[in-house]
Amino acid sequence: MNDATGMFIAETHTSAATWHYRVEKMILEGKTKYQTYQICDVPRFGKSLFLDYNIQTSLLDEYVFHECMSQPAMTLHPNPKNVVVCGGGEGATLREALKHNTVTNATMVDIDEELVDMVKVHMPEWHQGAFEDPRTTLLHTDARQWLVEHKGAGIDVILSDLPNPHEDGPGQFLFTREYFQICADAMGDDGVFAMQAGSANENYPECMMSCIKTLESMKETFPYVAGYYGIVSTFFQPWGFVLASKKYDPLALSAEEIAKRFQERRIRNRYYTPRFHQALFTLPEYLLEAYAKSARILTDESPFVWTA
Amino acid sequence: MNDATGMFIAETHTSAATWHYRVEKMILEGKTKYQTYQICDVPRFGKSLFLDYNIQTSLLDEYVFHECMSQPAMTLHPNPKNVVVCGGGEGATLREALKHNTVTNATMVDIDEELVDMVKVHMPEWHQGAFEDPRTTLLHTDARQWLVEHKGAGIDVILSDLPNPHEDGPGQFLFTREYFQICADAMGDDGVFAMQAGSANENYPECMMSCIKTLESMKETFPYVAGYYGIVSTFFQPWGFVLASKKYDPLALSAEEIAKRFQERRIRNRYYTPRFHQALFTLPEYLLEAYAKSARILTDESPFVWTA
Amino acid sequence: MNDATGMFIAETHTSAATWHYRVEKMILEGKTKYQTYQICDVPRFGKSLFLDYNIQTSLLDEYVFHECMSQPAMTLHPNPKNVVVCGGGEGATLREALKHNTVTNATMVDIDEELVDMVKVHMPEWHQGAFEDPRTTLLHTDARQWLVEHKGAGIDVILSDLPNPHEDGPGQFLFTREYFQICADAMGDDGVFAMQAGSANENYPECMMSCIKTLESMKETFPYVAGYYGIVSTFFQPWGFVLASKKYDPLALSAEEIAKRFQERRIRNRYYTPRFHQALFTLPEYLLEAYAKSARILTDESPFVWTA
Amino acid sequence: MNDATGMFIAETHTSAATWHYRVEKMILEGKTKYQTYQICDVPRFGKSLFLDYNIQTSLLDEYVFHECMSQPAMTLHPNPKNVVVCGGGEGATLREALKHNTVTNATMVDIDEELVDMVKVHMPEWHQGAFEDPRTTLLHTDARQWLVEHKGAGIDVILSDLPNPHEDGPGQFLFTREYFQICADAMGDDGVFAMQAGSANENYPECMMSCIKTLESMKETFPYVAGYYGIVSTFFQPWGFVLASKKYDPLALSAEEIAKRFQERRIRNRYYTPRFHQALFTLPEYLLEAYAKSARILTDESPFVWTA
Repeated sequence: MNDATGMFIAETHTSAATWHYRVEKMILEGKTKYQTYQICDVPRFGKSLFLDYNIQTSLLDEYVFHECMSQPAMTLHPNPKNVVVCGGGEGATLREALKHNTVTNATMVDIDEELVDMVKVHMPEWHQGAFEDPRTTLLHTDARQWLVEHKGAGIDVILSDLPNPHEDGPGQFLFTREYFQICADAMGDDGVFAMQAGSANENYPECMMSCIKTLESMKETFPYVAGYYGIVSTFFQPWGFVLASKKYDPLALSAEEIAKRFQERRIRNRYYTPRFHQALFTLPEYLLEAYAKSARILTDESPFVWTA
Repeated sequence: MNDATGMFIAETHTSAATWHYRVEKMILEGKTKYQTYQICDVPRFGKSLFLDYNIQTSLLDEYVFHECMSQPAMTLHPNPKNVVVCGGGEGATLREALKHNTVTNATMVDIDEELVDMVKVHMPEWHQGAFEDPRTTLLHTDARQWLVEHKGAGIDVILSDLPNPHEDGPGQFLFTREYFQICADAMGDDGVFAMQAGSANENYPECMMSCIKTLESMKETFPYVAGYYGIVSTFFQPWGFVLASKKYDPLALSAEEIAKRFQERRIRNRYYTPRFHQALFTLPEYLLEAYAKSARILTDESPFVWTA
Repeated sequence: MNDATGMFIAETHTSAATWHYRVEKMILEGKTKYQTYQICDVPRFGKSLFLDYNIQTSLLDEYVFHECMSQPAMTLHPNPKNVVVCGGGEGATLREALKHNTVTNATMVDIDEELVDMVKVHMPEWHQGAFEDPRTTLLHTDARQWLVEHKGAGIDVILSDLPNPHEDGPGQFLFTREYFQICADAMGDDGVFAMQAGSANENYPECMMSCIKTLESMKETFPYVAGYYGIVSTFFQPWGFVLASKKYDPLALSAEEIAKRFQERRIRNRYYTPRFHQALFTLPEYLLEAYAKSARILTDESPFVWTA
Repeated sequence: MNDATGMFIAETHTSAATWHYRVEKMILEGKTKYQTYQICDVPRFGKSLFLDYNIQTSLLDEYVFHECMSQPAMTLHPNPKNVVVCGGGEGATLREALKHNTVTNATMVDIDEELVDMVKVHMPEWHQGAFEDPRTTLLHTDARQWLVEHKGAGIDVILSDLPNPHEDGPGQFLFTREYFQICADAMGDDGVFAMQAGSANENYPECMMSCIKTLESMKETFPYVAGYYGIVSTFFQPWGFVLASKKYDPLALSAEEIAKRFQERRIRNRYYTPRFHQALFTLPEYLLEAYAKSARILTDESPFVWTA
């Protein structure tokens, strides 16, 4: 058997390239109402999840994505008690939020019940018991609608771990100014919001840049907005996130203060560490160029449509 | 989702090309002592079996391969009672042999018990109950060794449906003059032998041509030797077979006689039909050229090693 | 460098599979008004031509395709003097026609002048000087229109070597009853027509079968219609052709008569030989099944649209 | 034509994945004594160079790689006059070095004369005239041997832009302690050395980490050693570099000082900017973990062998 032989999952990333991930062993495959999934072993990456034939996470570096998704926002808030995870199927974003012992209530709202049920059984390395944590409430409903119904709920931190806004998917309306406002309205006066915002590479940074621009356009709601990225080797690219904050400035948070909070809350991270905080939030110039060139304000009427 | 996205099994065919078969749904995947297997749905081809990441058979045209494997030899013999299938894991070669109501004993010798056990449950479309036929004896042992032990057994027809002679596999010694002699010795004086012999396309016909040459070199044992091929669309190429016969000349069998035997034995085929018999045995010139250029006599000492 | 590394041209064949041909060396690449082309070396296949990223021909077995395209029709006609090749860019169909020393005029009508100009220089192995033959007239215009203008011209043989009827191409109207009638009107009373008709494998034989059915529906024009196929290893499938004849029955042509004509005309073929004639015209059952199931009469109003 | 169709160059990155870059247009292809090359247009990436079927650089972000290769070392040295580029075929590392107006002599030593000759004509976007700069000396000889012969030459900056240490290539001995010592011996007392050191992703960071460890083991020669990385979107991963310095500490260089030097030397960069310096040198934890786990000292006797 030569190197070209075997089983692969192929995904395209713009017209420039298709990546063929090798499937060493298919663990489980299925289809929910919303998406197809494969859990399989990929060499070097280990157990991995694909949704609609796009890799989502692998054991090699799921911590990079999920710490980026949770830790900067959770750490920035001085006392995060009520946390909401939108999406976040694998339960790892929830797991990261629960690491903060300040949390009293963590609500995860993921519409795909079948997927989460599958994850509970087959992906324990990701949730690590987070779904059973007594502080957790797990809901399977539309996250945006749920947030509308929780206007004024005073949530401390919202972590928006939602699928990219694909052309034929509902994700488009979870990356708009209106959605961000709904989040803001459900948070308290010092709420912190973080979202995954798509690729941070130079080939297609438009989604991330537009998320930043959109949140920046809401200055009265979110005086502090900052993009950051994690190096997700499994994605073959850096991945973008945006943090928006009503009261606390992420760039003003010192390594010492982060270390102090980690100690108080007994946090131990592998990617988001005190010394790495500043680097995490330092975007390369090409993102700033892309921001200037192609970012736009996303609205329900004119949302971002992911074509990569 | 675009056309380049999805799950694929890739197999190489010489340095010229790699074929990516699309996997629509993985039905079952596993590993026996001898090989890995995947049963999956391929678009257009339907349910398909891959062994060591090489497609073996699909519902679209498994009948082409399996009729070619069984029907010409079974039909040529005027009264095939005792039949032996060497290999033939899916049970479809056996199924085809059992269609001849002359058969009283059909022994299938396939070393891979785990694979056949899996096939029984998950590939009923192939065996169609053949394993439960009262005439069937199923053995899991080395076919060559078993035949050695059945010297003089007077078998009427031997169908050698064995894996290609890959470099690191045992198949090499199932494509040699010594093996063919062992088969001959286990057969009666009017025994008929048929084998799958590898690709019949112009790119790599050497294995098939060498099988013909080797059997032809045993003139005293097998006065009649004839190559033929089936168009296996699933393999993206015509597939080669060789028939060797102690007493009956396949090229002398008329369409009328075949039709008569079919009627007597209540045979109904989809590929090997009376009118198609002559065309089946008419090899294109390129195979004759390849025979002249590259065929050689295969022996245990100097077997064919499949590198495609 | 491992086996998965290198340069490839990928083409899809229905949703079932994508084939990656390895490009060992790019010889020439370009774009005409009508199509993109690559001439390159593919291992085992040798020098090969791709049009719009679909392999057209390789040195390994171009003779199979081009003999099938020309020889049965040319041989069937007892005295082919005036021959027209529609399409046939590489000049090899023309070359095959010119092998018949009865020919006095051979007109090739290929709309893509840039392609033919390139072929003249870079693909001498195909045309072998056919364009310089004094009997040849080379025209670059629309073949169908040219034939309309040559109604009553009494052409002996028309060889229709035209691209498959792709969705967005003009080929659709070169695979219809109206086009076939135009061909008939330009031919003499004993004219013979042959065409390439698409794949003859079991996965997508609909185009070929519909061409047969359409020509059969013109019984008064073409009393004799017969499908046949060549095993084109480069295409990874058997390829279909259809012959339609006003006066001569291809199935009545004996091997002896073919041999006699070959001798008279000093023909030496590698694929279409006297002994192979009958096998060539013997279609496997699956094509007959496909004919029954999916063939339809193609018209300008409802042409075949190739989607493979 | 669907998305799976087209021309691709495929490269494998460990057993985990194969990447298929789409070739929109082949501009030039050839082979030198040392390697094969393709210059082609890749969608989104623009004009790109592949060597031995591995992408080297594209117009999209060649500046990222080449600034990383040259600018930190050149900027760190307070007065770089004599600069040597080892390898660096495209001329872009040289171009970046020459941006520093302190430079009086820039010697580029690349063994592959045919490749550089080709680059001069066909890749002007990379060298931008650097080969014609009066300060440039271009040599085609073995870089290591040339450096041996220039012991004591007092070179200010050596930029080692050499191919990865592949199994069957000479690169292995250009990533060893002995080579680094040869570099040191050719440099002055305040010399600065920088090298490209392979992937900085989490999947295979061993080469980069071992380069760091090896240079750190030479404390008396190089008191200051620092790894850094650039986000090269074209490589689908962050790329690693190592800087080793005899006298100047890169981590002590302030953004203000960098800005001052840029102004004095009239430098304008797109990736390596004053504000980004600290982030550039801040390695993510996974690299520190990989350093602890798998880094080793590379020597001529036990060099690194790249298998990705």
